[in-house]
Parts: sequence; C-alpha cells; structure tokens
Amino acid sequence: MSFEITKDYLDHIHHLVTKNKNSELLKLLEEVHYADITEIIEELPIEDGLYIIKLLDSDKTSDVIAELDEDTRESILKGLSSKEIAEEIDELDTDDAADIIAELPEGQKEEVISHIEDAEHAKDIVELLRYDEDTAGGLMAKELVKVNENWNVLTCVKEMRAQAEQVTRVHSIYVVDDDNKLKGRLSLKDLLTTSTRTAIKDVYIRKVDSVNVNDKAEDVARIMQKYDLEAIPVVDEIGHLVGRITIDDIIDVIREEAEKDYQLAAGISQDVEADDTIWELTKARLPWLILALLGGFISVSILGSFSVAMNNYKELFFFTPLIAAMAGNVGVQSSAIVVQGLANNSLKGSLLSRLLKEVSLSLLNGLTLAILLMSIGLYFLGFNYKIGITVAISLISVIIIASIIGTFVPIILDKRGIDPALATGPFITTSNDIFGILIYFTIAKLILGF
Amino acid sequence: MSFEITKDYLDHIHHLVTKNKNSELLKLLEEVHYADITEIIEELPIEDGLYIIKLLDSDKTSDVIAELDEDTRESILKGLSSKEIAEEIDELDTDDAADIIAELPEGQKEEVISHIEDAEHAKDIVELLRYDEDTAGGLMAKELVKVNENWNVLTCVKEMRAQAEQVTRVHSIYVVDDDNKLKGRLSLKDLLTTSTRTAIKDVYIRKVDSVNVNDKAEDVARIMQKYDLEAIPVVDEIGHLVGRITIDDIIDVIREEAEKDYQLAAGISQDVEADDTIWELTKARLPWLILALLGGFISVSILGSFSVAMNNYKELFFFTPLIAAMAGNVGVQSSAIVVQGLANNSLKGSLLSRLLKEVSLSLLNGLTLAILLMSIGLYFLGFNYKIGITVAISLISVIIIASIIGTFVPIILDKRGIDPALATGPFITTSNDIFGILIYFTIAKLILGF
Repeated sequence: MSFEITKDYLDHIHHLVTKNKNSELLKLLEEVHYADITEIIEELPIEDGLYIIKLLDSDKTSDVIAELDEDTRESILKGLSSKEIAEEIDELDTDDAADIIAELPEGQKEEVISHIEDAEHAKDIVELLRYDEDTAGGLMAKELVKVNENWNVLTCVKEMRAQAEQVTRVHSIYVVDDDNKLKGRLSLKDLLTTSTRTAIKDVYIRKVDSVNVNDKAEDVARIMQKYDLEAIPVVDEIGHLVGRITIDDIIDVIREEAEKDYQLAAGISQDVEADDTIWELTKARLPWLILALLGGFISVSILGSFSVAMNNYKELFFFTPLIAAMAGNVGVQSSAIVVQGLANNSLKGSLLSRLLKEVSLSLLNGLTLAILLMSIGLYFLGFNYKIGITVAISLISVIIIASIIGTFVPIILDKRGIDPALATGPFITTSNDIFGILIYFTIAKLILGF
Repeated sequence: MSFEITKDYLDHIHHLVTKNKNSELLKLLEEVHYADITEIIEELPIEDGLYIIKLLDSDKTSDVIAELDEDTRESILKGLSSKEIAEEIDELDTDDAADIIAELPEGQKEEVISHIEDAEHAKDIVELLRYDEDTAGGLMAKELVKVNENWNVLTCVKEMRAQAEQVTRVHSIYVVDDDNKLKGRLSLKDLLTTSTRTAIKDVYIRKVDSVNVNDKAEDVARIMQKYDLEAIPVVDEIGHLVGRITIDDIIDVIREEAEKDYQLAAGISQDVEADDTIWELTKARLPWLILALLGGFISVSILGSFSVAMNNYKELFFFTPLIAAMAGNVGVQSSAIVVQGLANNSLKGSLLSRLLKEVSLSLLNGLTLAILLMSIGLYFLGFNYKIGITVAISLISVIIIASIIGTFVPIILDKRGIDPALATGPFITTSNDIFGILIYFTIAKLILGF
C-alpha cells in the first residue's frame, strides 16, 4: 500500500481548483487519507491548498493542517480567519491544537482561542500553552481515559464510552482517586475479561510508570523506549494526573534528536531544510564557515612561521593538505563513535581504558597508512627519503593526537552539560587541521633541522 | 521515574553473586523491571550476568536476553545449553525469538528449535527465519488477534480472550475470511460498544492498511509514520494475513537508519560501537582513511605541479589548507541538507531551481567570507594585495563549486539507487579538497601569471 502522487494527478487537481469544480474535487479527495492530502497541498501552490482546505470538511482538514510542514501551515493559516482556524482547532486533540496556536502571531492567539466552541477544550489548550515544548508538558495531550478507583467495572465501561469518544486510541485506562491522584492502571484487555460487578479497586494494577510534567522531552523518549511503553501518563508536582504522552509524539522527538546531531556534524547550526529560504540557510551555515575561516588563518600563520623550510624542503608544503585532511577525518570518526555512545548510554569502562584503546587503534591505523604512504611516496612519486620518513612519522603522530582529541572533546562537553554532537562538526575538523599542521612542521623541524 | 544504577548497587550485586546469596538476589531483583536488569547485566562481568540469568525465572530473563546488546547476548548464550536457550525462546514473542535464533551458530539453531515445547510456536519461528531481516517479514511477529468475518461479537470476544493471552498488546483486531485472507479490521473500542449478538460482518471496517511480507523495512517505517499507525498487518503475495508489525519495532528501524547516516557522514562504514573490538573498529574506519590518503596524494601532485609559484608567491602555499577546509566544509553542509531532504521526502522543485538556489546561497556566503578574508589578510596580517585578491576570488569560486558538488552528488547517487548518505562523508571532503586546490592554483596562475 502506498499512494503515489504523480505530476499528472497534481495538474488535474490544479485544473479542478482553477475551474472551481467543487463537486469533482470533493469526489476525488473523498477517499484520500489526510496524510496524502497533506502531501498534495505541500506540492501545490498555496492558493490551491487554501482552496482545498476551505472546501473540505474540518474533521479532515484539521488533521491536514496539523501534519503540514511549518512553512506551508503558516501560509495556509494566514489565509484563514481566526474563526476558521478555531473551527479546525475544535477538531484536533489538545496537543496538536496547542502546537498550532503556539505558532500563531502573538495578537491572534487569544482571538482564535475565544472562538473555540467547546469551553473545556479551550481551557485544556490554554493549560498546555503554559509548558515549554521540550518538556513532558509540551508533548502531552489532555485526552485520556481515566476511571475512579471507587467505581465498579460497569460504571467504568459506561464512563469510558463517553470519554473514549474523544480519545483516538485507548492505550491504558488510568485509575485515579477522588482527588485525581494517579493510583494505577487497568488494561483494556483485562477489562474485557472481568465481570461487570467487580470493583475497580480489586482489579487495577497498582504500579504505573509516569513522568513529571517538567521532565525533559528527551528523557521521556528514553524512558518510553527503554521500558517499551506506547503511552505514559503525566503527573504534576503533587501526583495529579494531568495528561498523557503517546508513542507517535516520541517518534518525532527521536527523529528530531537524530537529525539535530546529524546537522551539527555537518556544520549546520539550526533545524533547516533544503526548502528553507536562502536567508535561513545562510544563518544556519555561515557561522560555521566563519569559524573554519578563522581556523584557516591560524594554519596560514603556522605555515608562514615555517616558511624558511621552503628553501630546502619545498615538498613538505605539498603534504600539508594531506596531513590536515587525515587529522580531520580521524577526529570526526573518533568523535562520532563517542557521541553515539553517549546518546545510547552505551559508553562503558574508565577514561584510561578508553584512552589506551583509542591510542592502540590509531597506532594500528597510523602504521598501516604510514607504510602505504611511504610505498607510494618513495617508489611511485620518487620523493626524498628524509621527507618520506618525516611525513610518515608525522602522519602516525597526527592520527594518534587527532583521535585522542576526537574522543575526549565530546566526553568533556557532555560532562559540562554541552551537547557533545557539537564536537563532531567543523569544530573538530578545524581544530584538528591546526593541531595536525603544527605537529607536522614541528616534527619536520626536529628531523630535518631547518 | 527512573531507575539509577549506581556503582555501589553493582558492587552489592557482584558481592551477592560471588557469595551465592540466591535468596537475597531474588528478593533484590524481584521488583526490578527487565529493562533495568538488562542494564545491570551489561555492566557486570559476564559470569555474574550468566549467574543471574540462570537464577531468575525465564518469563523475566527471556525479555532480558532479547534486550541485551548483541555482544553481551552472544556471551550469555554461549553459557547456556540449547535446552536452556529453548526455555527462554518459549517465553518470547515469535519476532524476538526468531531474531535470537538467527544469531546462533549454524549448528545450534536446529538443536534449539527442536527443544521448543510449543510446536505451533516453533513452526511460527521457523517461518519467520525465512525472511530477510530488512523486510516486513523480518520485522513482523506471528502474534496477533484475528476474527472470522462470519462470527458474531460474542464468539469473537470468546475467541479473542484465548488469542489475547499470547498477545502483549492488542492494537487492532483483524478480520479474515474462511481462507485467512485479510478483509478489514475491528477496533477494540468499537467492540466495547457493540451488542454481543451483532455479526462481525456488519460492524467491521472494510478498509485496512497492510504491507506485503517482502516490503522493505524502511518503507514500512515510512508508511507507519506517515499514516500514524501503531500496528500494521502483513500479508503474503495472495493476501493471506501472515503477521503483524508494531510501532516499537519501527522505532528501532528509524533509529538505526539515522545512526547509519550519521556514521556514514563521519566516515565509518558499518554499524560499530565504542565498545567493539579494535579489529572491528579498524575495519569500519581504515577504508575511509585510505581513501582520504589516496585523495591526499592527488593534492600533493597538484601542488607539486604548481611548485614554480614558490619562487615569487610562497604565501599562496600557506593558504592551501584554508581553501581545502572551506571546500570540505561547504560540501558537507550542502550534501547533508540534501541527504536529509531525500530521507524525509521533502525535496521539492526542479534541479534547475535547486542549482540556482545553491549558487546564490554560496555566492552570498562566499562574498561575506571573501570580504572577511581580505580585511584580515590585508590589514592584520599584511599580505600582498595581489595575493589577497587571488585568494578571495578563489575562495568564492571554490565555495560555489563545492556547494554544487555537495548538492548534486547525493542526488545522483540516490537516482542510481545508491545510499546518498555515502556522499556526506570523507568521499565529499576528499574530492572537494582536490577540486578546491586545483581551482585555487588555476585561478592564481591566471591572475598572477607564474
């Protein structure tokens, strides 16, 4: 199964929109999943998207709006009145609703909220707006199914039917006391197999994992993955049940975390996409390039200070990009392994054992590469023997130092509470370039004595 | 909530194991979640882990074994007899069971399978072993809840109770015909609210998303994310319901995919971890370093061929690492954005518009950096005016070319069915180093005329 959006299909929809063929459009899109309509709207001109959103029923378009990428959503919402936005919000779960309202211009937020029909829904959304988006409170929805420990199974099933109307997926039934304090859970499966007269008190499981409303989103993700949970209840400081986080929201957290690490490793400092504006892309990329440029100037100065070597050993200068590249590559390799180890919590053993391992690993790699370098350099390219030895020894030293820097910088950053992924990008390549060149020429000076 | 494993705690367990204090160990670990026991065993010496596995009940240890990292699991399983392994397998869902058996040495597989008590379970596992691990068949479990379209709700609930015993989480109830062909689904929620005499035929939803047993794991992940599914049924070529994939398995696919991209970007060619052996780490890292070394030799030759410039313009050579570093960084930035766009399916617009955008973006970055370079170079470091102009013009050209290469190499790889993430690693930095240096000296020769 998979819905293929072809250019012909898009052209056809564009044609129908242009000619105002509403009934044909409605018929065409009737059976299409909202996730596919989202993709269609992202591919079409904004005016077409807006036309479709206004044409379709808001029980379908609300999900489309929630799924759209941020830029398209912003453009679409600009074309809707506050009342129309509120109608979409009415159909959404509180977590998606709050996310959308949070993106609106400051002045419009209250206006939209005032148009929400269901007062309870509006109150829940306003509550969610209070929380930071990177916390459990920012992820949770108010929709959940809860029962009182003092009910029996029959009351419970009746109450649940009412509550379940508003909840897309019932994962667990949470059990609370009269004060709304979380006491435990009931599984839907258990409920199916228990007599209706049984008291909830007698059947519920008194142990339930929960997170605090202020817990960090990535900690929630870690807990839900580790304990293999599909939903987790959220409690406030004094144990009141205030919301529920489901696994689909956690998938987004995991993906965003991985994408952020990847972007940092590539020297992109914020969450940008290929289709962002040139200005946004420049803001994300230029700072790292400036860092690399300044680092480059340090290499220029180092090379300048060794310029006397040009008189007798000009080949030395031909090898600087090679040495710098090896230092950069080794540094990035070492740091990437450590960053992933830190992210997965799989880094074990003492610092000393890690140091020994890294040194022996890079000695092994360095020796192999040095032998390769000597063979190619001396036999095929016919370089001076002394230069060959100098470059080979420098290569081994540079690889060892670069791998030590690559291993320990992320560990140190992590200990200081800084995101270690920072260390895998231009930061480590630039500093390893500088160290590499400095070590190389220092060793050359010692061996060749210029 | 979070369980903290301290050094004292581990020492205490080690002590209990050494002194064979079984009852104390059992009491201590009784209330501990299997995911925490997994972590404890990963931190302890293998013999301690084995001791604990043998001590605890297999309804708990089976989950521990399934959760252990591959290396620890291999060591633990070596310490168990085939019969003991089969006892653990008996407790596991078919998907986890098949994964573990697939890791066993060839000769032991059949022996373990022959010791599985439940013949049906063994048959299901053998069936799963047939599928490639990167396909829907490799991800799915045989455990699911299905009902016949010809039953009524009462029969259905009765049958479900029996089936549900073996299924950890009931997401959807699948409806099949007499021939086991997938016809639709019933939600547990709907079942709760329907009279027991209703025929299933009259209430089930005739539309259900499914995947084919041979579909690729990453496609399944994409579909489940896009359509926000927590479980999806798997059918064979002729539509028979053969299994079910749940969202927790998909999370692993998403994470592994992201980790693989990240490792490729860092020049690590296979799935390694910080705690792998030096030999495994070398195998993953050395090939990329050899590639970088060979690329480095090309730079050496290019620089050698321009060595005449050293007579009058030796400063030119000081700037080579700077130019090479900028080319590498820009190339990695551009390729990373494209690779993520390809992975998220968010890359839109024609190749020409992408080219124009990339060129204007890099022109903007290039000009900014060139002005910065001129100011620093001329005013602070006192470089020759002509050299300054040469380096600045080269920098702009190199940045434009590097970003074009960085953008199009992944697009071309992707079109040819090669993983575009390959392009973000040492491959692009090495080739951009070479192009950068070649462009730089060619421009210098044109301007300075050596």
